[in-house]
Amino acid sequence: MARARSEERRAEILRATIEVIAERGYRGTTLGAVAERVGLTQQGLLHHFPTKEALLVAVLDERDQWDTGGGARRGEGWRLELLASLVDYNAMRPGIVQTFSALLGESVTEDHPAREFFTHRYGQVRADMAESLRDEFGERLPGGLTPEQAAPLLTAVMDGLQYQWLLDPEAVDMPVVFRHFLTLLRGGEPGPAGLSAS
Amino acid sequence: MARARSEERRAEILRATIEVIAERGYRGTTLGAVAERVGLTQQGLLHHFPTKEALLVAVLDERDQWDTGGGARRGEGWRLELLASLVDYNAMRPGIVQTFSALLGESVTEDHPAREFFTHRYGQVRADMAESLRDEFGERLPGGLTPEQAAPLLTAVMDGLQYQWLLDPEAVDMPVVFRHFLTLLRGGEPGPAGLSAS
Repeated sequence: MARARSEERRAEILRATIEVIAERGYRGTTLGAVAERVGLTQQGLLHHFPTKEALLVAVLDERDQWDTGGGARRGEGWRLELLASLVDYNAMRPGIVQTFSALLGESVTEDHPAREFFTHRYGQVRADMAESLRDEFGERLPGGLTPEQAAPLLTAVMDGLQYQWLLDPEAVDMPVVFRHFLTLLRGGEPGPAGLSAS
Repeated sequence: MARARSEERRAEILRATIEVIAERGYRGTTLGAVAERVGLTQQGLLHHFPTKEALLVAVLDERDQWDTGGGARRGEGWRLELLASLVDYNAMRPGIVQTFSALLGESVTEDHPAREFFTHRYGQVRADMAESLRDEFGERLPGGLTPEQAAPLLTAVMDGLQYQWLLDPEAVDMPVVFRHFLTLLRGGEPGPAGLSAS
């Protein structure tokens, strides 16, 4: 019972954090601002999440669960058209994309608390993507790569485009550029949803 | 004369910073450590570079000059085989790649001092790459993209792969994965240097 209440409170904190991120961005998302939003003292919040990094990692982990369909069969969440929709969706939520990108940047520095999360996440994402690509295309994608060759590239394109887009959203139409990459993977076929003109 | 001495000193500081980065990584590269290396007081160093961010931006800017051939004709530095060599080279210098990646991550946060550098850099890199791709392939690359479509993707793949490689160099062979992307751009042709087996 106490455990259920604690998990409920934890979920409430994560939802509040996402709101604060959307409103105030990465730097404005302090433990104090989140505590205020959920009606906790900062001490009370620290009981659930001991650092800002731990809180943000939990938010990103929760987002991954949602984005890849949670209960869906492993691999299902990464079909190419779903990835394109995910990039469309990300283009409408710069706050969480900024949080992901800023924390990923920090995580490659020495002894960073988010390093293990990202290292594990990428291993999992590459494996799940490869499995999903194999389901969708077999041993070779139409563009010629194997699922294992395509998975780290797909991941790199999604992450790399986010930086260019966050820095200059007018210059980089992230969803359109991402679809150009899908067209390459498909060997020139624009895919079910058609290729944007630009 | 004073100006020449100041520029010489500046170049010396940048070389020392690259050494400190290689030895101590992003977090260990403090203004104090750099000042000590060049035999300046921290006050003396601050006269040339007022913040750690300003110093690191100058280092990254200098690296870009070297990497893209400095005096070479605009666009020359980005031919695909040269890019592949650049990625090979980057895989041998994790310190500077880590510095680039960490600072890029920070730069997307509010009012960060490196934001303008990266925003300007990416606009320039995309334009130069597109020009270079047009020189190399004309209006369409063999894989079907125009130079302007391929440029932001090339940039995204380079940046995105660096994060995966820094986090888990055993799992991600950055130069090999990058060449898979070049193969896609070339429409399945492995290119002059041949395609690695893995």
